[in-house]
Amino acid sequence: MTEINVIDTTSAARSAAIGRMLRPRSVAIVGASSTPGALGASLLGNLERNGFAGDIHLINPKRAEVQGRPCLPTVADLPEDVDVAVLAIPQPAVLDAVRALAARKVGAVVIFSAGFAEAGEEGMAQQREIAAIAQAHDMVIEGPNCLGSVNYIDRIPLTFVKVDMALRNTDVPRAGCIGVVSQSGAMMTVLATTLSSRALPLSYAVSTGNEAASHAEDYVEFLLEDADTRVIAMIAEQFRHPGRMLAAARRARALGKCVVLLHPGKSSAARASAATHTGAMAGDYAVMRTKLQRAGVVFAETLEELGDMAEIAVRCPRLPSPGVAILGESGAFKALCLDLAEELGLALPELDETNAPALRAAMPAFVAVSNPLDLTAQGLVEPDIYYRVLAALFDDERFSTIVIGLIQGDPMTCAIKMPPVLRAVRELRPGKPVIVAGLDAGAEVPTHFIHEMRDLGVPYFPSTERALRAVQRLVSLSTRSFDASALAPMTLALPVHRKVVPEYEAKALLAQAGVSFGASRFAATADEAVAAAAAVGYPVVLKAQSEQLSHKSDAGGVALNIADDAALRQAWERMQASVRAYDASIVLDGVLVERMGQRGLELIIGAKNDPQWGPVILVGLGGVTAEVIHDVRLLDADLSQAEIVAELKLLQSAALLDGYRGAPVLDVGAVAALIERLGQVLRGTPAIREIDLNPVVVYPRGEGVLALDALMLID
Amino acid sequence: MTEINVIDTTSAARSAAIGRMLRPRSVAIVGASSTPGALGASLLGNLERNGFAGDIHLINPKRAEVQGRPCLPTVADLPEDVDVAVLAIPQPAVLDAVRALAARKVGAVVIFSAGFAEAGEEGMAQQREIAAIAQAHDMVIEGPNCLGSVNYIDRIPLTFVKVDMALRNTDVPRAGCIGVVSQSGAMMTVLATTLSSRALPLSYAVSTGNEAASHAEDYVEFLLEDADTRVIAMIAEQFRHPGRMLAAARRARALGKCVVLLHPGKSSAARASAATHTGAMAGDYAVMRTKLQRAGVVFAETLEELGDMAEIAVRCPRLPSPGVAILGESGAFKALCLDLAEELGLALPELDETNAPALRAAMPAFVAVSNPLDLTAQGLVEPDIYYRVLAALFDDERFSTIVIGLIQGDPMTCAIKMPPVLRAVRELRPGKPVIVAGLDAGAEVPTHFIHEMRDLGVPYFPSTERALRAVQRLVSLSTRSFDASALAPMTLALPVHRKVVPEYEAKALLAQAGVSFGASRFAATADEAVAAAAAVGYPVVLKAQSEQLSHKSDAGGVALNIADDAALRQAWERMQASVRAYDASIVLDGVLVERMGQRGLELIIGAKNDPQWGPVILVGLGGVTAEVIHDVRLLDADLSQAEIVAELKLLQSAALLDGYRGAPVLDVGAVAALIERLGQVLRGTPAIREIDLNPVVVYPRGEGVLALDALMLID
Repeated sequence: MTEINVIDTTSAARSAAIGRMLRPRSVAIVGASSTPGALGASLLGNLERNGFAGDIHLINPKRAEVQGRPCLPTVADLPEDVDVAVLAIPQPAVLDAVRALAARKVGAVVIFSAGFAEAGEEGMAQQREIAAIAQAHDMVIEGPNCLGSVNYIDRIPLTFVKVDMALRNTDVPRAGCIGVVSQSGAMMTVLATTLSSRALPLSYAVSTGNEAASHAEDYVEFLLEDADTRVIAMIAEQFRHPGRMLAAARRARALGKCVVLLHPGKSSAARASAATHTGAMAGDYAVMRTKLQRAGVVFAETLEELGDMAEIAVRCPRLPSPGVAILGESGAFKALCLDLAEELGLALPELDETNAPALRAAMPAFVAVSNPLDLTAQGLVEPDIYYRVLAALFDDERFSTIVIGLIQGDPMTCAIKMPPVLRAVRELRPGKPVIVAGLDAGAEVPTHFIHEMRDLGVPYFPSTERALRAVQRLVSLSTRSFDASALAPMTLALPVHRKVVPEYEAKALLAQAGVSFGASRFAATADEAVAAAAAVGYPVVLKAQSEQLSHKSDAGGVALNIADDAALRQAWERMQASVRAYDASIVLDGVLVERMGQRGLELIIGAKNDPQWGPVILVGLGGVTAEVIHDVRLLDADLSQAEIVAELKLLQSAALLDGYRGAPVLDVGAVAALIERLGQVLRGTPAIREIDLNPVVVYPRGEGVLALDALMLID
Repeated sequence: MTEINVIDTTSAARSAAIGRMLRPRSVAIVGASSTPGALGASLLGNLERNGFAGDIHLINPKRAEVQGRPCLPTVADLPEDVDVAVLAIPQPAVLDAVRALAARKVGAVVIFSAGFAEAGEEGMAQQREIAAIAQAHDMVIEGPNCLGSVNYIDRIPLTFVKVDMALRNTDVPRAGCIGVVSQSGAMMTVLATTLSSRALPLSYAVSTGNEAASHAEDYVEFLLEDADTRVIAMIAEQFRHPGRMLAAARRARALGKCVVLLHPGKSSAARASAATHTGAMAGDYAVMRTKLQRAGVVFAETLEELGDMAEIAVRCPRLPSPGVAILGESGAFKALCLDLAEELGLALPELDETNAPALRAAMPAFVAVSNPLDLTAQGLVEPDIYYRVLAALFDDERFSTIVIGLIQGDPMTCAIKMPPVLRAVRELRPGKPVIVAGLDAGAEVPTHFIHEMRDLGVPYFPSTERALRAVQRLVSLSTRSFDASALAPMTLALPVHRKVVPEYEAKALLAQAGVSFGASRFAATADEAVAAAAAVGYPVVLKAQSEQLSHKSDAGGVALNIADDAALRQAWERMQASVRAYDASIVLDGVLVERMGQRGLELIIGAKNDPQWGPVILVGLGGVTAEVIHDVRLLDADLSQAEIVAELKLLQSAALLDGYRGAPVLDVGAVAALIERLGQVLRGTPAIREIDLNPVVVYPRGEGVLALDALMLID
């Protein structure tokens, strides 16, 4: 490998290379075979059955031909510039094959074999070698330890998993398709099977496996620019390029595309097991989630949810936003929906007898106007009621999304209820998501109704639970504000040669950014301390200052409520003695003399620059109960004040900020301002590893906040 | 109605009457019709199509015959003692018909019509009249506002919803069937459709509607004693006989039957809406849930869960208990299962390379032993691995339940994987629940595999999420301890003419039950108070005592930390004055002089006798944060101390009891003992409406607890 080949491939070039692999004109199969069940045979069968029209080069040293096609004995016999080579060979032969393919200037290599990074030191070394070859030759590597990929647009399966696509794919919907990117090969096929069974249009499905050289982010970037792909459904256990993934998510939002993500491995048990099976450590889950959500990614908690959200996102004319109406046929169902909506935090605009005249006029008097609406069994007697009610809801601007919960019963019942629903969508083209969910999963529903719904852009769900859950998650995406703080990043001049910045220096630094601390002065001697106390005013607190002393209290390094000079001198002596007793090696810079703050509600605010994902800020209530229940919010570092306030309201104990039990309403605005400024500092000074303000006391509205302590760690 | 007819029908007599209705030898249809779609016509069609062999009496004043059967002009023309009459007539005619049917000694009446209690005052009055007639004539009334019932054992549908049962029902499995009881008619049909589509055996499905005279509890009691019913799936929004429902749940447990319940209406919004659609108020949801769970009922949160739990309960050889093994084929799937298990609180016994030799021997070396197990795609190469692995898991006593997550792919893949799974169950008869779940819902699975699974008692689920969720809920039933406190109910002699019992009297009463309070004396004068303080020891607290003064602090009726006689006299005067100023009408009984308690962790303990469900005790952490987040547990009043301790550990802030951050471990046993004694008092003295102990201070282990305040309300 010569240095000159290590070039910084741009995103466009990377995407072009990925595109060449996924839309190849020529494919080489290394390890071609005609033995049924052999990987090479399955792959060739897939290509032939799906009508691959490009060149196929087969390589097998022991065979002159396979399935009537000529075989080349070695990779060296390949013509140059084949678009993609697929390795259907045992693990020990992979590295040499990759090397030989690079020499033949192959564009990409797909490696199914396991036994690399996930299998121990030797495999890891081989994988690194593959990565180096790929980088040196600008080669895309899919895998190792993957199941390949499928191009559904041009019907090119580069996988040994059996794939049967329609012979002519002229059906790419104008609304676009779902692209699947999964690190796990098994999950790629699972998701593709499930989505296909729901007649959802797919563009590409890719499994990235161990990601020796090409990573999930590369494929996401490719799909973002792919005109046929509107929704990207991802299953990823880790991101090797957090910054690029965040940029891709923001780009998706700009393009009106939707990224839904299932992340296996949020639990501690799963994270421990992940290290063994992918050969790589996962980063901080909460930070990753905060950052990706902020960039616009929607998280699914289960495979079902991933498919459900992808279906709504790709099938409906637009994404659900707040204002969900539910149409049902039973009082108990209405109650179940209210229960679920409350649990999910899904707001249902209220309807009553007077606030929806069109809806009132659409129904007989004995059907009450409400949301959810309980039509009773009246639709069986008078099916047109579905049409009239839907017409009223389509026209009602309070509703962005309509979920229809139908009791399907049997084909005869379906034949009564479904036509007026379908007719309403067909004739009135509501331009908003309309979702039909059966209450009685497993009922015999004539398939032509389901096909017709899908043709009309109406997702069909087997249960209202699943429909409402997916709707809620997408609604919450639409209500996310992506406004960023207007404050420009602020660069602080950090002290050199420090790892731990002592309180007096940290406060001086952060005060530049407008963080409010109590009046304080640094004192190197007892006399200076007396003068400092006179300047800030008694009562004061004394705090020992040293880079070596991050837990002042444990060392007797804090003296509270000092009322006068005599007490101060006494406290000074005692403090010097007790710090010495705690650890004789500690050299104090001096003591911080600070005016005692008034009591109030205490918060803990921590900021850090995550090495993978960048700056985040954690805020929570102080006090031991809040600590035990971990009542905290993790915020991106560039939120506007309004968004910070919204996040504070999501604390479990947020009521304490709001004048709980007759206490005054607290200065939440000042908390938000402080957090915004911390964000400004973190963004502008990446060398700051961590800042802890603990506690931050919040005073009544208009009276601000005061950070009583500050600790800063720097790189 | 003569008084003599108002008899106290016993449970056995009620069940016999219900049995007569559900297994009738003669049915009258009031409002017979041949108009397609008319209720009477649909009902008759149902009976004929399903081969009802008993007598059918048709009543229609305008027709001589219907569908070739003779018609009677009026109810009065019926023979006496027809088993059941079904009213397929408009609401206004119902009351007269019921009256006439009672005169003909009909055993039961099914009323479909709505327009009764749910429709306002007049309907409510009519419903009461129907109830009175039913009671006077020992008549079962199903409805009004119901969809009737179906007897699947004898194939007798008393409903107008189309029902087609197999012509000969010789298939009642020995393991028993599911009986459905739903207040909502719509939900009854929904559940019956869903369960039938899963080929689950049903015994009876009943909708109870407005429950004018016969209630859900009646049908549950009938099904409990029915030999064909093993699982009762209920959908109920309220219970009119809480005591009987609790007894039925306990009886189910004794009989080895399982009651699963979906309760629509736990949210506040749903409870508000319920009042309108059932015409009845729901009770306290949390109390109901606590009591029913304690009695052995399993709650479902959604329709899906209800069906899922019923399927496992009726199909498996026994209920799942702790010790779940998961068999999968992918690392990402393993991570997803670990995530879900952690979220659900489902423990998965850990497996490693050394602790499961049989399992180790069953697999190639490169497949690691773990739980969940990740077989990789090895099963495709070597299908027998499924058999060997299952054999090892069946024999492993750590596992009560096996969940197999299969990637189904296509029929060919199923044909590789499913036979060894089926063979293992068929040959090895594990006697423990084995559940197969597809990961890729919608995959084309040959139906004969699914049928064969079901024949072998293996539930087949469309997703592992659903399987694990249902398993977890049933496991949690099996781990519920039903041990009751050994303490006999204790009857306290309550003061007469009191509603509010002041602190000094409440403490004296509860001290008899062993509740520990600080040393205290009641004092009517300042001199008595000084003597009292000398007896209990300074420092003391003074608390004003009066039935009229339930919020002492607000009135200045509490003085803390009084150190000596002088301070006590001063405090005495100030307290008299400030209570007078607060409300001149309050007459103090006197003042309670109590030794100041040491500080410690504060709990709030409240006990009440719920008018519907009986005694319960609420315990939570004190302090404003705990209050805001509502960190409480609601306990039945007869728990043993061990169970109370287990409940305390479920508090969100339970860590505070356990020696958090170096604090001493607290005396949880003393808390449990106090709660057990409160339960003893509540159970023995039902006239107590409420007891509040706030705060109760918990000291380090061995040092007990102290209730600092006590308030008691009595009837």
